[in-house]
Amino acid sequence: MNSVCGYSIAEYIQKLTDFHGNFAPGLFIGGYMVDIAKRHVCQYEIFDAICESPACLPDAIQMLTPCTIGNGWLKIVDTGRFAIALYEKTGGHGVRISLDAAKLDAYPEIKNWFLRLTAKSEQNRDDLIRQIIDAGDDIYSVREVTVSPGLLRKHKHGGRIALCVSCGEAYPEEDGTVCLACQGMDIYR
Amino acid sequence: MNSVCGYSIAEYIQKLTDFHGNFAPGLFIGGYMVDIAKRHVCQYEIFDAICESPACLPDAIQMLTPCTIGNGWLKIVDTGRFAIALYEKTGGHGVRISLDAAKLDAYPEIKNWFLRLTAKSEQNRDDLIRQIIDAGDDIYSVREVTVSPGLLRKHKHGGRIALCVSCGEAYPEEDGTVCLACQGMDIYR
Repeated sequence: MNSVCGYSIAEYIQKLTDFHGNFAPGLFIGGYMVDIAKRHVCQYEIFDAICESPACLPDAIQMLTPCTIGNGWLKIVDTGRFAIALYEKTGGHGVRISLDAAKLDAYPEIKNWFLRLTAKSEQNRDDLIRQIIDAGDDIYSVREVTVSPGLLRKHKHGGRIALCVSCGEAYPEEDGTVCLACQGMDIYR
Repeated sequence: MNSVCGYSIAEYIQKLTDFHGNFAPGLFIGGYMVDIAKRHVCQYEIFDAICESPACLPDAIQMLTPCTIGNGWLKIVDTGRFAIALYEKTGGHGVRISLDAAKLDAYPEIKNWFLRLTAKSEQNRDDLIRQIIDAGDDIYSVREVTVSPGLLRKHKHGGRIALCVSCGEAYPEEDGTVCLACQGMDIYR
């Protein structure tokens, strides 16, 4: 495949490097996963996203879909698996895309990287990129899913805001008599 | 202030709308907060970020700094307070910026929006934007902080990858004998 969500390979590599701060193979692969997923949910006007890994993949979703952490349309549910799902936001019907270890025998550099079979210093980045491009859709598993009700987007009602009597800052009143930070979170020394 | 991190106001509004999917006052304000914070940490070559709210503010940091959720340089620590911190990544020394409710009396539209004193339908967006621009740095509190050791970036060693005997997918072996999802997470029906 010579494009990722409408970007040429070179454009996508530039875009991900600008956003992510450096080139990451997982983010490059993530672009292909988002590309496949978007083809499956194109009938939905609005979709949400789940990312099963906190590393790299969330940035592919944020760069290539309207779903971000800050707008709440992207949720990270850390299962440790290299997978994403895009789904219609109210019913939860959608598609899950995962990089499939069982499909990597023809792509040794991808397999080495994914399963950490070789040290990073022994990996050949050019070969890795070439194999990801050559593989196209072949190395992913695609599964229809319905997201569990507990994870579907809730309509936010916007509760009352209070001023914390301890730190003086504004916080959601429903959090308690003082803000969560003053209830004992260890953030700043 | 007529610029946000080098962007003109119009450019920044376009940029945030493109990334976030719609205009959000909190994200517009977040741009000013990041602008102030960056002026304080410009001596550091590499800095990390903490965002104390999961709504809007993370996107300002992701758009205007190299820190993203996917590269791990941005952490969300949900205290419910409208604040961010940028800090030198190893020692944790940096600066915390918060929108200060005590400084909003001269900016009634900002106060109404921030403390939810009026319904969204009664807020005047143009006045709100104008007051945010007019206020410049005046409505924020700036505090030097040292981030707690538990939140500082760890060097990732990249443990072994196993194939889950239940779902067959690759996962970090240290998570257990099966992956976290197969240990009972409720994600898909």
